[in-house]
Amino acid sequence: MGTLDLAAIVADVGREMQSHRGEGHVADYIPALARVDARRFGLAVVTCGGETFETGDAWVPFSIQSISKVFTLTLALERLGEDLWARVGREPSGSRFNSIVQLEAEHGVPRNPFINAGAIVTTDALMAGRGRDEVIAEIRDTLRRLADNDTIDLDKEVAESEAATGFRNYALANFMRGFDNLRSPVEEVLQTYFHQCAMRITCRQLARAGLFLANGGVDPISGERVVSAEHARRICAIMMTCGHYDASGDFAFKVGLPGKSGVGGGILTIAPGKAAIAVWSPGLNEVGNSQVGTLALERLVAKTGWSVF
Amino acid sequence: MGTLDLAAIVADVGREMQSHRGEGHVADYIPALARVDARRFGLAVVTCGGETFETGDAWVPFSIQSISKVFTLTLALERLGEDLWARVGREPSGSRFNSIVQLEAEHGVPRNPFINAGAIVTTDALMAGRGRDEVIAEIRDTLRRLADNDTIDLDKEVAESEAATGFRNYALANFMRGFDNLRSPVEEVLQTYFHQCAMRITCRQLARAGLFLANGGVDPISGERVVSAEHARRICAIMMTCGHYDASGDFAFKVGLPGKSGVGGGILTIAPGKAAIAVWSPGLNEVGNSQVGTLALERLVAKTGWSVF
Amino acid sequence: MGTLDLAAIVADVGREMQSHRGEGHVADYIPALARVDARRFGLAVVTCGGETFETGDAWVPFSIQSISKVFTLTLALERLGEDLWARVGREPSGSRFNSIVQLEAEHGVPRNPFINAGAIVTTDALMAGRGRDEVIAEIRDTLRRLADNDTIDLDKEVAESEAATGFRNYALANFMRGFDNLRSPVEEVLQTYFHQCAMRITCRQLARAGLFLANGGVDPISGERVVSAEHARRICAIMMTCGHYDASGDFAFKVGLPGKSGVGGGILTIAPGKAAIAVWSPGLNEVGNSQVGTLALERLVAKTGWSVF
Amino acid sequence: MGTLDLAAIVADVGREMQSHRGEGHVADYIPALARVDARRFGLAVVTCGGETFETGDAWVPFSIQSISKVFTLTLALERLGEDLWARVGREPSGSRFNSIVQLEAEHGVPRNPFINAGAIVTTDALMAGRGRDEVIAEIRDTLRRLADNDTIDLDKEVAESEAATGFRNYALANFMRGFDNLRSPVEEVLQTYFHQCAMRITCRQLARAGLFLANGGVDPISGERVVSAEHARRICAIMMTCGHYDASGDFAFKVGLPGKSGVGGGILTIAPGKAAIAVWSPGLNEVGNSQVGTLALERLVAKTGWSVF
Repeated sequence: MGTLDLAAIVADVGREMQSHRGEGHVADYIPALARVDARRFGLAVVTCGGETFETGDAWVPFSIQSISKVFTLTLALERLGEDLWARVGREPSGSRFNSIVQLEAEHGVPRNPFINAGAIVTTDALMAGRGRDEVIAEIRDTLRRLADNDTIDLDKEVAESEAATGFRNYALANFMRGFDNLRSPVEEVLQTYFHQCAMRITCRQLARAGLFLANGGVDPISGERVVSAEHARRICAIMMTCGHYDASGDFAFKVGLPGKSGVGGGILTIAPGKAAIAVWSPGLNEVGNSQVGTLALERLVAKTGWSVF
Repeated sequence: MGTLDLAAIVADVGREMQSHRGEGHVADYIPALARVDARRFGLAVVTCGGETFETGDAWVPFSIQSISKVFTLTLALERLGEDLWARVGREPSGSRFNSIVQLEAEHGVPRNPFINAGAIVTTDALMAGRGRDEVIAEIRDTLRRLADNDTIDLDKEVAESEAATGFRNYALANFMRGFDNLRSPVEEVLQTYFHQCAMRITCRQLARAGLFLANGGVDPISGERVVSAEHARRICAIMMTCGHYDASGDFAFKVGLPGKSGVGGGILTIAPGKAAIAVWSPGLNEVGNSQVGTLALERLVAKTGWSVF
Repeated sequence: MGTLDLAAIVADVGREMQSHRGEGHVADYIPALARVDARRFGLAVVTCGGETFETGDAWVPFSIQSISKVFTLTLALERLGEDLWARVGREPSGSRFNSIVQLEAEHGVPRNPFINAGAIVTTDALMAGRGRDEVIAEIRDTLRRLADNDTIDLDKEVAESEAATGFRNYALANFMRGFDNLRSPVEEVLQTYFHQCAMRITCRQLARAGLFLANGGVDPISGERVVSAEHARRICAIMMTCGHYDASGDFAFKVGLPGKSGVGGGILTIAPGKAAIAVWSPGLNEVGNSQVGTLALERLVAKTGWSVF
Repeated sequence: MGTLDLAAIVADVGREMQSHRGEGHVADYIPALARVDARRFGLAVVTCGGETFETGDAWVPFSIQSISKVFTLTLALERLGEDLWARVGREPSGSRFNSIVQLEAEHGVPRNPFINAGAIVTTDALMAGRGRDEVIAEIRDTLRRLADNDTIDLDKEVAESEAATGFRNYALANFMRGFDNLRSPVEEVLQTYFHQCAMRITCRQLARAGLFLANGGVDPISGERVVSAEHARRICAIMMTCGHYDASGDFAFKVGLPGKSGVGGGILTIAPGKAAIAVWSPGLNEVGNSQVGTLALERLVAKTGWSVF
């Protein structure tokens, strides 16, 4: 796949999405998300060769939301290693992303690090007793370093709105605390969790930040080893089987790449050995993934042949 | 990856498994499976270039069991196309492979074609009103053609034992019949299902039969297009997210390739663009997948770098 | 409560129900039930003193359906004694009457003898290896003897329709067979079950047949001891907590007496120490109990003060 | 049943329990409960005629725990009337007393007022926006007035321990808050809930306080109408079907009276028209009800013939 082709493909996908802009339903459970323009669409591809291709609103920051779970998992895995898996599984959940049912059946051990319960436990594991400010700063600074951009920051209003309406997350956290699978105080863990989900990032920054996952754990531009090759593969495996709530199978079926979506409308997708792709369009489909974003990725993969299957 | 290397790698894996032979617990719910020698181990790799590498008991036939679901899905998908997905989903199940709970919650539509309920519906869809003998013959003849071996046949004793003890499958089938998601008579569908699971096949034949999935739907040796490239990718995606019961995430995590296991101890694994791999060792781990077989695949993938991630 | 009062009360209730006749939805999953006249309403009270009071269609036979479970439980309890409780519980089910979920969680032991699964196990326990004809005859003859009426018989068409559409019951039976909680062949047990539910009985006969439960296990008219006083109390306790599917709490709340309803629109209710009451009106409410029948019982209990609370 | 007999019966039951004292396991999730002497046993019967009979430790205060839910329900029902039932059901739960599963399936409406979730909602309904201190005082003063004893008070240590370890109740409350079925702040409702469960009461006081339920809602000694006759019957009905967690059916089966147990080892039982009975023995059986207390009630009912069935 030559440079020239990729530029054309990204431009083509951008053009094809023009008529789809505005499709889906923008998340409206908090005001800061609800007022985002539904017609936004951005796409950025950063290759392992260091080239960047983009179209649309690739420079407009959006709320990272659940995509942050990829980076928290990365940090927790480097800090705890395989011990992490005693506290969170790596199997698809097979039910709604914030369901509490399976959690009860499995004694407070969430199915995987990408459902809310699992991300809360992963956050707690990463905290390892540290205060919220330190850990929030660590996550923000990691995003800044990986994206090579010091302007990435979090949206206080979003974090506060999430905290004020996040009763289910409070339920999940207390529930796991009752199973002794939360070590820091519930409030500390949840505040850290809400703040990491409130980071604002652009497609261009996000693709850049995730590039190490496409290159065996080493950022090919900076040369920094972020995680071991094995951990990089494993994070991708979890993105493939668990990255899209209860539509992970569908994403594997249609796109065929590891990916992680967020209710802000973003999706980070990894084409192993080739590139990191970030797409953003705020309208969500009925399972909570970006509708136009998913379609754009289907088109991009069809044109590039990047499906791993 | 040269021919010479692959020969050495397969031989190495075979040697490394010597000390593991006999590990795990052989399925014992029917006599014909229970009396299989636990120390068997076979491995066969057939490349898209048409070469075959093997080690151990790669020529010894074993019971295909749930691996047959890959071929039934292939046939049903070619016959019905996308209409199949109205009757069976493609999401991981997140619970025990024969659980009836999720089936009730989702009104008789099984989560995917690889859990028992989903395979029964897929079989019914493939039957499309035809009699059991015709459909069983179609599945057997397909395996024979794909494996290029006319001796593949089914084990009557196994099929009869499955029927005599398969109360849960009778429950599942009647349950779905109650939701109008089974069209042929329960007995016809189940007999077809039990017979397809009773096929006897060797590692060498199984890898050969699955090769089209590694090559975009075209058998690279015979040149036959078995399914469209899109269907081949999609079958692989379902194998990746749903192929190992409630350890599909774990298999993606450790092996990183699409695969489908059976309680006979076999696993068919696809390395897209490279090869089809069949492994067999009868001892199962606690989630019902071949223990030594999984280990052998981990080693093979580590040595070949064939993980898709 | 004098004889005269009761006659007036029953007549009053009958008059009050005139304007309600036809309310609710008649069960229509089989033709024989669907064609029953929705405007039917009958009520019969047989006192421990041997007097009978009735109003409306108290002499019109209807399909006993699940009310038969009271008599099957009576027979099984006399035959097996406390051993029965190893195979079926006596707790309310807390979910839909034919749910299979709880059955899986509790390893094939149904919650109580009045949900379908529990009645099937109870039937199997009563059969104790005997053939269906013998057991169906035993149940029919018991009803005849207790009702003091030799014309009670079963409706072949209903039994056959139930068998032809009873996929969920086949699912339940096979499911429990898989847990080894069914001993006779599935088909034998289910045919017995479908036939006992197909008995045709009038309000007058039903109240007469249930009278022993209001009188400590002894039929006060014939003097026959049907069950021990303890068993009579315990059957009433199960009727109170489990007799109305997922509205048992509501029936206890509104009527305050042990009762058992059937989808044919009948309800058998026991006023301990006072009387047995049978009511029939085919229209069902949203949880599957006779709508007008329940209302009539509420009125009767308000007027008689027979609530046990 | 004469006075003399009852005195003898209560004494007999006390004697019979001597050899059972210490059976069961004392609740140990908080220190204040764990250090209670396992050999305690008390029984008090207060008749509608105003007589009191007692044996053993009937004057020793214990922690009321879930029995308080009867009085909170009484107050909430008087305050809200039938509107209460829009927020909490009256059906048995059929699963563990603090299960969150059913709550999710039923959109945050708990099955009944006696499971934890239901009691939390009932408390919130009773609060109707008032502060915790006012409502805790109302509950305490109601108990004092009904028991005719001004010394009843709550145990601060117990309330604080419950709050510090009650993660599941925090989970339940936040969960229902997420379904908009909690109106006051989570912390306010839970503190009120924990404090009402921390009341200390003796068997003698508890039987006295519950006497109005045995007498159609009117305290027969003071003459005060506490609730309407209809509400009294309905509270008894809920005690009968839901009063003993997942052993309510068993209690109805064995004792045959409405009752409500608590993990402190107490049980309040109502013999309608006859008496209120309070029993206390701290050792619990495997479902969390007082083991010796239940046995004592079985014996008492066998001797008095007070079963409602």
